[in-house]
Amino acid sequence: MRSNLAKNSISKQTIRRLPQYLRVFYDLHAYGRSLVSSTDLAAETGLLPIVIKKDLQAVGAPTKLRAGFKVAGTIEAIEDFLGWDNLNKAFLVGAGHLGSALLGFSGFQNHGLEIVAAFDTNPEMVGQEIHGVHVYHTAQLKSVIRSKKLKIAVLTVPDSVVQGITDTLVECGVKAIWNFASVKLSVPEDVAVQQEDIAAGLAELCAKLKSN
Amino acid sequence: MRSNLAKNSISKQTIRRLPQYLRVFYDLHAYGRSLVSSTDLAAETGLLPIVIKKDLQAVGAPTKLRAGFKVAGTIEAIEDFLGWDNLNKAFLVGAGHLGSALLGFSGFQNHGLEIVAAFDTNPEMVGQEIHGVHVYHTAQLKSVIRSKKLKIAVLTVPDSVVQGITDTLVECGVKAIWNFASVKLSVPEDVAVQQEDIAAGLAELCAKLKSN
Repeated sequence: MRSNLAKNSISKQTIRRLPQYLRVFYDLHAYGRSLVSSTDLAAETGLLPIVIKKDLQAVGAPTKLRAGFKVAGTIEAIEDFLGWDNLNKAFLVGAGHLGSALLGFSGFQNHGLEIVAAFDTNPEMVGQEIHGVHVYHTAQLKSVIRSKKLKIAVLTVPDSVVQGITDTLVECGVKAIWNFASVKLSVPEDVAVQQEDIAAGLAELCAKLKSN
Repeated sequence: MRSNLAKNSISKQTIRRLPQYLRVFYDLHAYGRSLVSSTDLAAETGLLPIVIKKDLQAVGAPTKLRAGFKVAGTIEAIEDFLGWDNLNKAFLVGAGHLGSALLGFSGFQNHGLEIVAAFDTNPEMVGQEIHGVHVYHTAQLKSVIRSKKLKIAVLTVPDSVVQGITDTLVECGVKAIWNFASVKLSVPEDVAVQQEDIAAGLAELCAKLKSN
């Protein structure tokens, strides 16, 4: 395992903070700043300077002695680490409220993700466009995925159908699934799954509230 | 710090996994199971048995020697730890797609949260009910929060207005904020903030995809 690239040993916590750093660095860049100290970044993010330093060093962010991190170079380093310097084409299954919210999430293009198709079974949605994305019937999943060669899925479907849909996606060669249903998915080893748990954030809030 | 109750030293990662355990234990309970081993829990959750043991012991889940965790007792221990044995009344600001998705999230009542009011500025939504929750105009925030004595806010509003709304909420005595906007909020020390970062999950997925 020691022979892996450094990027494989970066902690999940560091990875999850990278989008937050990116937003701050985009702002700094927009304001014309070329350097920023970890103390300033701490004030902006609420994180400890030592945490920020370790995170940014882990992705190879360039520094200038005693002056802090180079803004443009750090943006490049984070985008490169996450593969967000290239737009990844993805599709969404389940164009209900949550799905529509994700389609409208303005940040995705900045985050290397372009959602190029959506799927739903609701006849009122099929054939419509949501935030510029065409909604196909779920029965068309296989043909659209294969013809567009899509590899990344965002799943905002009910718990009861999510494993069945996942099986179809795997069959079609999908390699990454971002799952918003609260069911653990069974997939082959070469398929990456990211499980979102809306209740996890609520649990954190409740624990903070109780300890206050 | 050593004198704090054990619950204050439980890690954020453990807290975030508690809702996942709860779901599994609710299912086990519904199927009439009274005991479950950490090996079985590992198969169900995809987590390591040692992680599960440490997490559940941290919240004081009761065990039976060599037979595993007691199902009913563990549910009680987790709910008690999170304060989910009592329903907390909350309100939502921003009844757009994401807000509506949250209002429709069936899990909330199981998770100790009852959303009793929603607020929006869109004249088409004001006065309507979404999933049984009345939508007030945002101008009514102060009066409704004070008359209903609400302390917990869920914020699904645009980045540009979230700090202004937060200031109003703090003024009205709100003590906990679950923030879905991608802006770090400034609040007094006695207000708990839980920041949701939709892009954090995407970052994790992209990192997994790159290392596959």
